[in-house]
Amino acid sequence: MIRFDGRKPDELRPVTIQCDFLSHPLGSALISCGGTRVICAATVENKVPGWMKAQQVPGGWITCEYGMLPASTHSRMKRESSAGKQGGRTVEIQRLVGRSLRMAGDLLKLGENTISLDCDVIDADGGTRCASITGASVAFQLAALRGVANGSFAENPFVTPVAAVSVGIIGGVPMLDLCYEEDSNAEVDMNVIMTAAGELVEVQGTAEGKPFSRARLNELLDLAEHGLKQLFEMQKKAVEAALEGGK
Amino acid sequence: MIRFDGRKPDELRPVTIQCDFLSHPLGSALISCGGTRVICAATVENKVPGWMKAQQVPGGWITCEYGMLPASTHSRMKRESSAGKQGGRTVEIQRLVGRSLRMAGDLLKLGENTISLDCDVIDADGGTRCASITGASVAFQLAALRGVANGSFAENPFVTPVAAVSVGIIGGVPMLDLCYEEDSNAEVDMNVIMTAAGELVEVQGTAEGKPFSRARLNELLDLAEHGLKQLFEMQKKAVEAALEGGK
Amino acid sequence: MIRFDGRKPDELRPVTIQCDFLSHPLGSALISCGGTRVICAATVENKVPGWMKAQQVPGGWITCEYGMLPASTHSRMKRESSAGKQGGRTVEIQRLVGRSLRMAGDLLKLGENTISLDCDVIDADGGTRCASITGASVAFQLAALRGVANGSFAENPFVTPVAAVSVGIIGGVPMLDLCYEEDSNAEVDMNVIMTAAGELVEVQGTAEGKPFSRARLNELLDLAEHGLKQLFEMQKKAVEAALEGGK
Amino acid sequence: MIRFDGRKPDELRPVTIQCDFLSHPLGSALISCGGTRVICAATVENKVPGWMKAQQVPGGWITCEYGMLPASTHSRMKRESSAGKQGGRTVEIQRLVGRSLRMAGDLLKLGENTISLDCDVIDADGGTRCASITGASVAFQLAALRGVANGSFAENPFVTPVAAVSVGIIGGVPMLDLCYEEDSNAEVDMNVIMTAAGELVEVQGTAEGKPFSRARLNELLDLAEHGLKQLFEMQKKAVEAALEGGK
Amino acid sequence: MIRFDGRKPDELRPVTIQCDFLSHPLGSALISCGGTRVICAATVENKVPGWMKAQQVPGGWITCEYGMLPASTHSRMKRESSAGKQGGRTVEIQRLVGRSLRMAGDLLKLGENTISLDCDVIDADGGTRCASITGASVAFQLAALRGVANGSFAENPFVTPVAAVSVGIIGGVPMLDLCYEEDSNAEVDMNVIMTAAGELVEVQGTAEGKPFSRARLNELLDLAEHGLKQLFEMQKKAVEAALEGGK
Amino acid sequence: MIRFDGRKPDELRPVTIQCDFLSHPLGSALISCGGTRVICAATVENKVPGWMKAQQVPGGWITCEYGMLPASTHSRMKRESSAGKQGGRTVEIQRLVGRSLRMAGDLLKLGENTISLDCDVIDADGGTRCASITGASVAFQLAALRGVANGSFAENPFVTPVAAVSVGIIGGVPMLDLCYEEDSNAEVDMNVIMTAAGELVEVQGTAEGKPFSRARLNELLDLAEHGLKQLFEMQKKAVEAALEGGK
Repeated sequence: MIRFDGRKPDELRPVTIQCDFLSHPLGSALISCGGTRVICAATVENKVPGWMKAQQVPGGWITCEYGMLPASTHSRMKRESSAGKQGGRTVEIQRLVGRSLRMAGDLLKLGENTISLDCDVIDADGGTRCASITGASVAFQLAALRGVANGSFAENPFVTPVAAVSVGIIGGVPMLDLCYEEDSNAEVDMNVIMTAAGELVEVQGTAEGKPFSRARLNELLDLAEHGLKQLFEMQKKAVEAALEGGK
Repeated sequence: MIRFDGRKPDELRPVTIQCDFLSHPLGSALISCGGTRVICAATVENKVPGWMKAQQVPGGWITCEYGMLPASTHSRMKRESSAGKQGGRTVEIQRLVGRSLRMAGDLLKLGENTISLDCDVIDADGGTRCASITGASVAFQLAALRGVANGSFAENPFVTPVAAVSVGIIGGVPMLDLCYEEDSNAEVDMNVIMTAAGELVEVQGTAEGKPFSRARLNELLDLAEHGLKQLFEMQKKAVEAALEGGK
Repeated sequence: MIRFDGRKPDELRPVTIQCDFLSHPLGSALISCGGTRVICAATVENKVPGWMKAQQVPGGWITCEYGMLPASTHSRMKRESSAGKQGGRTVEIQRLVGRSLRMAGDLLKLGENTISLDCDVIDADGGTRCASITGASVAFQLAALRGVANGSFAENPFVTPVAAVSVGIIGGVPMLDLCYEEDSNAEVDMNVIMTAAGELVEVQGTAEGKPFSRARLNELLDLAEHGLKQLFEMQKKAVEAALEGGK
Repeated sequence: MIRFDGRKPDELRPVTIQCDFLSHPLGSALISCGGTRVICAATVENKVPGWMKAQQVPGGWITCEYGMLPASTHSRMKRESSAGKQGGRTVEIQRLVGRSLRMAGDLLKLGENTISLDCDVIDADGGTRCASITGASVAFQLAALRGVANGSFAENPFVTPVAAVSVGIIGGVPMLDLCYEEDSNAEVDMNVIMTAAGELVEVQGTAEGKPFSRARLNELLDLAEHGLKQLFEMQKKAVEAALEGGK
Repeated sequence: MIRFDGRKPDELRPVTIQCDFLSHPLGSALISCGGTRVICAATVENKVPGWMKAQQVPGGWITCEYGMLPASTHSRMKRESSAGKQGGRTVEIQRLVGRSLRMAGDLLKLGENTISLDCDVIDADGGTRCASITGASVAFQLAALRGVANGSFAENPFVTPVAAVSVGIIGGVPMLDLCYEEDSNAEVDMNVIMTAAGELVEVQGTAEGKPFSRARLNELLDLAEHGLKQLFEMQKKAVEAALEGGK
Repeated sequence: MIRFDGRKPDELRPVTIQCDFLSHPLGSALISCGGTRVICAATVENKVPGWMKAQQVPGGWITCEYGMLPASTHSRMKRESSAGKQGGRTVEIQRLVGRSLRMAGDLLKLGENTISLDCDVIDADGGTRCASITGASVAFQLAALRGVANGSFAENPFVTPVAAVSVGIIGGVPMLDLCYEEDSNAEVDMNVIMTAAGELVEVQGTAEGKPFSRARLNELLDLAEHGLKQLFEMQKKAVEAALEGGK
């Protein structure tokens, strides 16, 4: 069984993570997963959301905003700022990324700071939300370590890397890391987010064309675990290289 | 192990489904799951979304809008129409309900019609998105059968009932059908949507406080299946009673 | 002269008022006037609007928000929260309800509290703004009495019941309490809001097809007074029953 | 009894109507009522609203938009275009003006044209909605006559002048044509819109501080009729002068 | 070479400046430049923008908002407040007017006050942004002098008059003060804003049909200077007359 | 005289232009001017704006949208899509870029196509609008040549390269190509857009702190021409390299 782009069903697309792609934020990374490229930035701001103040919740916050460049898709998509609002898909994705990355950190150790994670897709070819999570984890980790160094944080607020990968069933075959062409034709589409320790952070499995059995769910989770192990390796190497390089 | 409200861990809250709660829509139901009450309406409109026309997609569409009355929550929430936009949570929920209910129907058999499912929460006590799905399935089923009768549809576009239930881990214990108090304290929160035939339509499991193992995931899915079987029974009885009663 | 639905010109539609229809707000009622049903809720919040603080106005505030479920009308109407704003009719109605209910209360006795009155139409068959006012008066009265009991208010801020009814001229004949079908064909349409003591709170008479004489205006006011007396009776009974029942 | 500004209770403020104040619209007028000044313009556009087309309603439409210059009020008010929406008061007023002016015209005789009435307040001192109606009637009348002359209309769509005046009770005394200072202190505030033939187009009476009796309502209507007769005279003279002058 | 409206290439349109056109603002003027008329108002408010407070910038602020009455243009334009936002052209113009007028004042001498300049076009025939600047300078000057008199300002915050004029190339000929007809056909369109001392505040030259040489740029600047000298004279006379008249 | 960053007053910052930075659009470039980096994309869409159709304007259109990644600035800026609208500065810039690039093309030769130029700043250090124009010219040129090759255009719609550079006066000294630090302290700030043939497309000179003489204006234009010659060279080389490389 050979896939659309020549991969085997359990094969990831080529992944690169270029740390410190941007000048200003404390942590940033350009992550490429096949034809999908996302700029992920982690900015530390010395403030917390209004609702935390109002409810006197101790600690800080981790939030995410997601966007796509209009020319990142095959047919140019409308710019959301000129449309006047973020679409439903955008809102759903940035909520997912924010939730997932809050599992990567310790809100109390942030102090009264907010980590804003900005994930901006510059080329889209499927799996942009997963690439965003995997890249944002790297950006957050860099910002956390440097924030300890520059005194923003008393303790390292980064707890564990998280990464995400998509899996799905196409033509009855479970496959890892779907590209756009595959994603459009999937019968089942699932995103799996895990910690580096192999525990689940979020599982979102959706029947696109027909419902699926629990046996299938388990096959897909196996595939995802297989891919995520490789992604955690790549995150680790990228962070190490960036720290050696300095900023 | 006795829960907050006296239930056992694998026990649903009391459920009632009052069909034809509204005058105008072809199908409607007021569903109560414990302290949560949602009005679900299915309206048939003889049109399809612009993108279907533009892309000449055959068949019809099923969509959902979700809302909460401002006084449905313990502290009054801001009305979204006066805030000028739907919040992220609302958008996320109505996308979930729409996706799930499209698995309940056959878009081709709809003809050039749209089924609008409106889920309006009048009392909220946890699990509103699940109650919305379970209730919307009933409203859709009624509208589909009556739409065949009144000539709107050539064939019955309703394929299978779908229902949803929440499960979660609180204090280390997997529990079925969380109320608000439990939901706020859950370490893991999961919504499981299935067809009456026992296949998965959507699984969304989220670590709220700490990541979870695949073993835990399986325990939660078992609990959900146990609850969903009962919900499918209740849907069936409600629809039968409504059809006998006539509209 | 027999009307569309079998009533006499000076006859109200059947009215029921079900108090405490919602779980959370201090006062609430589901009012039915013929085929029109509105959920009215009165929530007490310990704050006042920004302009009152800025201008150091003493006392509290009473405000209203009005909405219609999309499926409450014969043809489904667009949800205002997804349209991104409230329509002109909605704004006009909630301003009217707010003004009218401020005549039912004593703003000074509210202390620094706001009563939010939410009127949500679940079935619409004409006269929704009048039903909203009549129902909101009941919800406010319950919230006021219970707010005294729970210490929110030092004194009862409820001064007098208010109620509203529509009257109009159809085919040259003045009629009481128009249903939708009548309202659509009225030459003159008038809403009359009064206190239980029989004084006017607001009169809004509008020529829809042709202007009208002051003699006609007086006939319509007579009809309205006749109907309002009955509505005040029903409000009173509903409140008494609710207080006996307790909450 | 002498008023705030030296007038007797039944006395109008000085009124002037300067026709053709603007260059482009077919009809326009600058109306001054005491310290209140409103630019009223009537533009004829060869189109009808979408809903008229959709429902195949024959004839044309008359609509109104109302605005205030930010510097028209004592304290500068926020510009609605930069606030991003029209406030509730604005919406309410333009709906009132539109309704009232539709009574001045014959929609069938408009053909497939829309008359847009723009009422822009440049100085505000109470009674701006009434001045808008009185001035818009003049602008519409001029546009109608010229539209017949230039072939836009086959028949004159202007049926009857309409005018509006405010009345109110201050310190227990009914008064005509309230200025801002009086309006702010009124116990009852009423706007009366009539045709030149003395029939009612709209009556909106509102208790601001305490409810009022039907006897009071009648006194106020008498006062309003007294003022409106004078306004119809002034409209007539202004139109005659403008037609003589030509455009 | 005779122009469209009979002027010579280096001739301004007739200009009038009627000071104190509005009742409420401390300074105001109705400026007419040929068929273009703009109401300019300068309001003093005892506050500064949020960003000045946040950054502890000393002194005050000068800002501008620009609008057009819907009926000010040949074909009625959509009202921006009902469209829900200001168009790009509006935003661009009010930013230009604000920047230019800040050169006319001394922000430190304003104290913690904001001067809001509202420029509302009532008749448009080309050059509305230039007329707005020239008129706003007069309104600001009047408000500044009166603000010193009434104690709002310790020192006069008005430093120098500014004025603006458009120039352009039509059919290869440089021309001064373009009317709408000329502006629509210009190959180059330039707005020049200067101080009364003859120094440049802003130059905006735009090729509309084809690019232009630096020699052409210089010819246009010569023409503009020629026109601006006359405008400064007219500003001066208008202010003197207004101060004599008193307010 | 040595500048902040070691440059001489008439020296550009280092410039690189990386063509085909994005996968999907027909033409794209990542331009770096010192610390400023902008992704410029040119997408060809087979449609024209509504107003062109309505007015039956022949040919096509060239338009621009501009944005900044939130993390592109020193302090993170708010994302415009989540703010719900584009700020005034954004609108002003994209209008400028659109106007300038329309001078680079021949709208008739576009046929019924629109070229959308998206300029997204990923790192901001002054001069982002100028870098956008210079980069967008390259993206447009590539899209035009390839659009001829793929049959989208019958003739090459690209007429001439355009480029832009900022100049300004800091501490009394005219300087070329201001970085952010310089821009913030400039007394005069000017953007000059030219064609490769050395003609002016747009000149925008603004006094930031004090007005300036025409002699100063000429010195600044000389400096700008000096810098623009170098930019046109770099555009040329980048396009040639891209065409050799193929896409």
